[in-house]
Amino acid sequence: MKRLLTQARILTMKEGESRPLENAWLLIDGETIAQVGTGNPKIDADEVIPMQGRLLLPGWINTHGHAAMTLLRGFADDLPLKVWLEEKMWPMEERFGPRQVRWGTSLAVVEMIRGGTTCFTDMYDHMDEVAGVVEQSGIRASLCRGVIGLGSREEREAKRQEAVRFVRDWKGGAGGRISVMMAPHAPYTCPPDYIEELVADSAELGVPIHIHMSETEAEVEQNQRDYHARPVAHLLKLGVFDRPCLVAHGVHLTPEEIGILAEKDVKVSHNPGSNLKLGSGIAPIPEMLKAGIRPSLGTDGAASNNNLDLMEEVRLAALIHKGVRRDPEAVPAETALRMGTLYGAEALFLEDQIGTLEAGKQADLISIDVNGAHLQPLHDPVSHLVYAASRDDVQDVYVAGRPLMRNRELLTLDEEKIRFEANRAFTEVAP
Amino acid sequence: MKRLLTQARILTMKEGESRPLENAWLLIDGETIAQVGTGNPKIDADEVIPMQGRLLLPGWINTHGHAAMTLLRGFADDLPLKVWLEEKMWPMEERFGPRQVRWGTSLAVVEMIRGGTTCFTDMYDHMDEVAGVVEQSGIRASLCRGVIGLGSREEREAKRQEAVRFVRDWKGGAGGRISVMMAPHAPYTCPPDYIEELVADSAELGVPIHIHMSETEAEVEQNQRDYHARPVAHLLKLGVFDRPCLVAHGVHLTPEEIGILAEKDVKVSHNPGSNLKLGSGIAPIPEMLKAGIRPSLGTDGAASNNNLDLMEEVRLAALIHKGVRRDPEAVPAETALRMGTLYGAEALFLEDQIGTLEAGKQADLISIDVNGAHLQPLHDPVSHLVYAASRDDVQDVYVAGRPLMRNRELLTLDEEKIRFEANRAFTEVAP
Repeated sequence: MKRLLTQARILTMKEGESRPLENAWLLIDGETIAQVGTGNPKIDADEVIPMQGRLLLPGWINTHGHAAMTLLRGFADDLPLKVWLEEKMWPMEERFGPRQVRWGTSLAVVEMIRGGTTCFTDMYDHMDEVAGVVEQSGIRASLCRGVIGLGSREEREAKRQEAVRFVRDWKGGAGGRISVMMAPHAPYTCPPDYIEELVADSAELGVPIHIHMSETEAEVEQNQRDYHARPVAHLLKLGVFDRPCLVAHGVHLTPEEIGILAEKDVKVSHNPGSNLKLGSGIAPIPEMLKAGIRPSLGTDGAASNNNLDLMEEVRLAALIHKGVRRDPEAVPAETALRMGTLYGAEALFLEDQIGTLEAGKQADLISIDVNGAHLQPLHDPVSHLVYAASRDDVQDVYVAGRPLMRNRELLTLDEEKIRFEANRAFTEVAP
Repeated sequence: MKRLLTQARILTMKEGESRPLENAWLLIDGETIAQVGTGNPKIDADEVIPMQGRLLLPGWINTHGHAAMTLLRGFADDLPLKVWLEEKMWPMEERFGPRQVRWGTSLAVVEMIRGGTTCFTDMYDHMDEVAGVVEQSGIRASLCRGVIGLGSREEREAKRQEAVRFVRDWKGGAGGRISVMMAPHAPYTCPPDYIEELVADSAELGVPIHIHMSETEAEVEQNQRDYHARPVAHLLKLGVFDRPCLVAHGVHLTPEEIGILAEKDVKVSHNPGSNLKLGSGIAPIPEMLKAGIRPSLGTDGAASNNNLDLMEEVRLAALIHKGVRRDPEAVPAETALRMGTLYGAEALFLEDQIGTLEAGKQADLISIDVNGAHLQPLHDPVSHLVYAASRDDVQDVYVAGRPLMRNRELLTLDEEKIRFEANRAFTEVAP
């Protein structure tokens, strides 16, 4: 099926193209973008969709999160991290079964599609349920069974086998929309030999590694106590960075560590909202950019954010580093926009498929209504996207050429049922 | 006319009441709130408005801004402050006439009402136009002619007279919805004797003073060079703090200065979005709170934000101090919410009229739809308001008992005309 989107402004996000094409069109052929052009297209299509007053751009790519934690949104806030995690989150998550993950993830995917996210990353448990939601909803995702190696040898081996089995079952699943990773949870929750086993698995399975790293100061100190090394040196030694690797957070990094990450081409998921809310600190994004790292953006779970609005992360990434460094040029709007799109694709090793709007790539795109009073005058659509627009300006969402939302109406998910079931799933495990 | 809003959750924001009343109702009689209660009201009203699934709270109060600067939204971004101000903003603003202020302000008021702001503060030029927009739109405002004393003696005297005339003409205007202040622009743009004259005017007219203060480090240093004092000591000496006074920004303050502001009961408008975007720094809000100052929130002008979304300022106020201090308890959600409501009323010396929902106060209130997927489960409406909701969740806006927006439909302003005229007004002065 050929769909022709016409009369739009199109922000391709291709390297070197930072202004939108005016009066532009985009042809979708099946799952992919066949052509992008300007002016009057003389093309036959099965459907012609006028997009006046809308700005098309690649969908947001969320490179770190725990989708089912939507069930714990607002369940506990404004607490010290240790209390929040050990007394509030972990006891609740222990009670989570497949139903909680199913409906918590469904709720997350509704929110993400509504906010223009076309690809998300999930590190959690009961991952078959998450994959099922991805399959049904039509969204794209990079999924991994997050494993913690603190239990008995049998327990940790069982988790590892489950992670391996999940990779085998779902690699390229949902018609290619699902990609997979191996995910040792963090250096402080996985003993070194366990991490080495998971690195070997990742090599054998041919998939990347996703891991939390250097989120809090306390965690860095613990790593130094336990292993006489900061997390970067520790993971380097364990061979983690010899694999394609995406680290989440990277808040507490020295210049030397940033140099190592850049040299080993380690991908970073910057989670400004979560880092702020949990009081973890401010990641050194300007230094990363200078070192050649291209950081992506993640929301983290809804219990520590408390939303899954990647557009808000784009804005935070553009704003907070300017304020903290007292440098209005610290992270320009255009860079923040790339962090939310192309750099996200790179972080998930999917840049040949998604992240820009160009012929041959998957048709993962969103439209923004630029008519709102809060977006007038339209001096600079890039600036407005980053500093003035909000998730509700997203009108249409396409993934792999398929519309998942049109004019804010969800097409693949039953939002009312999901709201009901998600609330019920929480009630079933409520304290 | 009596309007009865029923079956709502109501967050009164009264001191000591931090949880919403469930199954609650609110009776509006004319301009004021007659009664708030729970259960089944046995009351006759001209109109009964069911509010199931909605959370009522006081409207947002924006305590610092320059509304007409919407015309310059996105006109220049990500530049050093000096270049942005001197090469971009000032030359454009010099070309602004009454038409630019009229339509720029109208655009601002559309955006603010849509985002749930019921009272805003404006320091600008051509203030009769601003007052006209307030009158027509039904919104509430605290207005002042911002005066810069850098010109000739005649010029500065003319500006002062204009400010005085504006206060006389509009004090209590628009049926009491307009309050007024005297506004020396800043210590670095007004010579000391000029500030003293304006202080005397403020006393004679019986109105507060509004002034920019300690926004940037450079400005503090200049004050020290020019007057051998930091801005707080300088303004204290000039008698500014002997008047009811609202300072905007207060980013660069020493503990001693915070102590003086607390002792003199000086009100503060915290503008986190603008301070971040311009790279000005992070105001010491936790220290102010500890000292007993109750900071309010402002968006500043749309050219340095780039929106007029006070709900975003509430979220930024709750988030950034946690991250910068590495303290998840730095500014709790409930405090941020008070900063956007009651503390805003106090900052404008209107706390006997607005800022909470209670009998006798003006009926300035908004409703939030709490059914969105991004607000499920509804564990904690206060947390969700601050961390998860967005301006588009605002459904209804009432000011002085009059509905300005219902179910997101604007009732007093012609949005399409305003968009058109605002764009035209910009074009007339475009470079």
